[in-house]
Amino acid sequence: MKKMIVASTSTIFGNGYLEYLLPTLKIHFKDIKELLFIPFARPGGISYDEYTALVKKSFATIHIAVKGIHEFENAKVAILSAEGIFTGGGNTFELLNQLYKKDVLYVLKQVLENGTPYLGTSAGSNICGIDMMNTNDMPIVYPPSFKTLGCIPFNINAHYLDPIKNSTHMGESRETRIKEFHVFHNTPVLGLREGSWLAVKGEKIMLQGKHKARFFKQNKKPLELESGVEVVV
Amino acid sequence: MKKMIVASTSTIFGNGYLEYLLPTLKIHFKDIKELLFIPFARPGGISYDEYTALVKKSFATIHIAVKGIHEFENAKVAILSAEGIFTGGGNTFELLNQLYKKDVLYVLKQVLENGTPYLGTSAGSNICGIDMMNTNDMPIVYPPSFKTLGCIPFNINAHYLDPIKNSTHMGESRETRIKEFHVFHNTPVLGLREGSWLAVKGEKIMLQGKHKARFFKQNKKPLELESGVEVVV
Repeated sequence: MKKMIVASTSTIFGNGYLEYLLPTLKIHFKDIKELLFIPFARPGGISYDEYTALVKKSFATIHIAVKGIHEFENAKVAILSAEGIFTGGGNTFELLNQLYKKDVLYVLKQVLENGTPYLGTSAGSNICGIDMMNTNDMPIVYPPSFKTLGCIPFNINAHYLDPIKNSTHMGESRETRIKEFHVFHNTPVLGLREGSWLAVKGEKIMLQGKHKARFFKQNKKPLELESGVEVVV
Repeated sequence: MKKMIVASTSTIFGNGYLEYLLPTLKIHFKDIKELLFIPFARPGGISYDEYTALVKKSFATIHIAVKGIHEFENAKVAILSAEGIFTGGGNTFELLNQLYKKDVLYVLKQVLENGTPYLGTSAGSNICGIDMMNTNDMPIVYPPSFKTLGCIPFNINAHYLDPIKNSTHMGESRETRIKEFHVFHNTPVLGLREGSWLAVKGEKIMLQGKHKARFFKQNKKPLELESGVEVVV
C-alpha cells in the first residue's frame, strides 16, 4: 500500500529547510532509522554531497539518519533495500534524466507501490504523476522521456502561483500554461500551492496543509479543493 | 547575409499586438508583399487559423499580406520561396516539435543564413539560439530534440524577469535557473527583457529597444548590456 507525502515545496517563506513538514514527517517516517535521499535534482546546481548534507541536518532534528543514493555502489539495490525514501527538489529535467540514466525509475515505482514510505518535494513531487509536463523548471537537460512514476493518477504543478494582480509582465500565468497542456492531453493537473501537500495512502489521496489547491481537468472549469478533502480524478 | 529581428515579446504591456515593433518592421520588411507566418507555437492553444488572423490584422497596418505556413501544401517549399518569415510566440516545445515533425528546421536555417528577412518573438526568438534549454515554457509536448536553429551563437531567455523584490514565493528566479543551466553547459544566455530585441545583420548582433539585457556566461558575473551595443560572445 502506497505511503507517500507529495509536497509542493521543501521550504516555505521565512522557515528553515523542511521545517513546516517536520511534525508530519516524524509520524510518516516513524520506526525508520535511515532514510535514502535522492539528490539528483541539484537545486542551484549544488553537488550531491552538499545537498545530502543539508537534508541530513534537517532529519537529524527528528532523529533520522540520511544517506545519499550516490553513496551506494548500486542505486537499484539502495532503493530496493531502503526503509524510506526522500526525493528533493531542484530541476525536474535533470532529476528525471538521472533516474533514467541509472535505470531506477521502474524499481522506484515498484517499492513505492509496495509501501516504502516516500517524501517528495517540488521536483520530487512532480515525478509522482503521469509525466513531468507540468513542471515550471527550465529544460536545462534533455531526458530520454517525460514519463514519470505514475504513482498518482494526475500531474502535479508544484509551487502553484495564482496570477499576480496588476502585473505588467506578458509571460503566461500558470493557469494559461496548464490550459495549453489540456489542448494536447487529458491528464488532470493539480496546482499545489507552497505549504500544501498530498498524503497518499494506497489509492486514497488527501489534500493537506494550509492552502486550497487548484485542480484542472480538460474542458472543465478549474476547481478549488479545500485542505482536508480527498482528491478524486 | 542574415537579416533577423529577435524580440523578447510580441506585445508590451498596454499596447496592441506587435504595436511597439511596427515602425522597425516597416523598415525590416520593406519591399515585401507577403510574409510567411509560422503559427506552430499556438499561444494559449489557439488554432493556426486564429493565430494567423491576428498577425494578418497587425501587418495590414503596414501594408504587408500574411499567409500561414499551414495554408501551403508543402511547408518546405513555403519556406524556400518566402519573401520574409515571422515565427510567433507561444509554447517553444510545441513550436520546435512541429518544426521537427514537418522536417523544416534545416531549411529554415538555410534561408535565414541566406538572407530571408526574419522576425521572431518569444518562442520564435528562442529557436534562433543554439538550443531551447532556456525557455520559460511548460514542457507540454516532448520534441525529438532541444536543438534549435543556431543562427545566433548564444541562447535567448525571452521575457527575462529580474527577481521580484519582497516576493515570498520560493520558486527559482530566472537568474538561478540560468546559473543551473551553466552547471551543465557553456552556451552563453541573453536575458532579453520585454520591449528589447536583437537586430541581426550577418554576424553583427545589436541590442535594440528600451531596456538593457542581462548576459550570462559560464563562470562569469552576469553583464548588463546597454541598448545600442553589439552583443559579442
